[in-house]
Amino acid sequence: MGRWEPNARERLVHAAVDLFAEQGYDNTTVSEIAQRAGLTKTTFFRHFPDKREVLFAGQEMHSRLLADGIAECAESATPLEAVAAGLDAVAASFTPVQREFGPRLIAVVTAHSELRERSAFKHAGLAAAMTEALEKRGVPDPAASLAAELGAHAFSRAFARWIEPENEESFPALARQALEELRAAVELLG
Amino acid sequence: MGRWEPNARERLVHAAVDLFAEQGYDNTTVSEIAQRAGLTKTTFFRHFPDKREVLFAGQEMHSRLLADGIAECAESATPLEAVAAGLDAVAASFTPVQREFGPRLIAVVTAHSELRERSAFKHAGLAAAMTEALEKRGVPDPAASLAAELGAHAFSRAFARWIEPENEESFPALARQALEELRAAVELLG
Repeated sequence: MGRWEPNARERLVHAAVDLFAEQGYDNTTVSEIAQRAGLTKTTFFRHFPDKREVLFAGQEMHSRLLADGIAECAESATPLEAVAAGLDAVAASFTPVQREFGPRLIAVVTAHSELRERSAFKHAGLAAAMTEALEKRGVPDPAASLAAELGAHAFSRAFARWIEPENEESFPALARQALEELRAAVELLG
Repeated sequence: MGRWEPNARERLVHAAVDLFAEQGYDNTTVSEIAQRAGLTKTTFFRHFPDKREVLFAGQEMHSRLLADGIAECAESATPLEAVAAGLDAVAASFTPVQREFGPRLIAVVTAHSELRERSAFKHAGLAAAMTEALEKRGVPDPAASLAAELGAHAFSRAFARWIEPENEESFPALARQALEELRAAVELLG
């Protein structure tokens, strides 16, 4: 078997989410994931350090896209407009497969405390990436971390809505809606 | 050795933070922690499931105190006033020992990705406890989770300031200050 496998990464994510949903996260081994994907364990470890990271494979890319979107935004944009641009940029990376997989992925993560922990860390990582990008634009602390936190919340809320079977809206539209709801909720805080 | 040991929990936390700071988190075993504390491994496991949880021992109590503080607040209080009351309640549990330990604790957690992950989970847990308590007061979503998120941020920011050697302010005063800064930062978001 050669080193290069077409769509190996995507096939591994597919196989892992299927197996986790079928037989549980704890009961699934890396060997089984590789086998289900028609690949070797070696190929698995070329793509992921362990089975947990298969579920959080997008984090680095999401962080980078959010930061790039914020950086490339017009200088005149407000912090929340920049965050919205970041969310647009990350949305461009989403595929129909991710949408189809979303509900199973969320179910697997929710069912397992180690994965919920990892998920909280992803949330914090996305917020940190946005905070840094906003600070580079000259947004002062704590406005930068607050805008980033709203962005990370909007990301989660929009993702949860986007994967609903009956949803027909685009991720960017849902993300802007979520950001707007959060922004409006500020008025209720007192 | 009897089942009851005076201040066993506190002695174990002391010993663990000292050892983690001295020789690293990965290089420290539960046996060493117990030995340094003058206790047995069995006593350790009566208090903590593993060495990591020694560092997050306060999470359940903090969540409960935050929720209680929010629940017991006057009906007329705004969501942020309720959050401030929750932070007051949790501050009442802080001891001079925690303040003394704070810088070492933060250094250990910051140096280790597994601990940063666990710390993000604690942050999310505190926010979830506050969100639930606010929703019970009738605060609608997403205002409840937003107020809770500001509360969790204020908690971290105030704690970081409280443990600074030159600090002379109380935790509740610092927490209110942090909340007010976050509230004011909202005006900059656009």
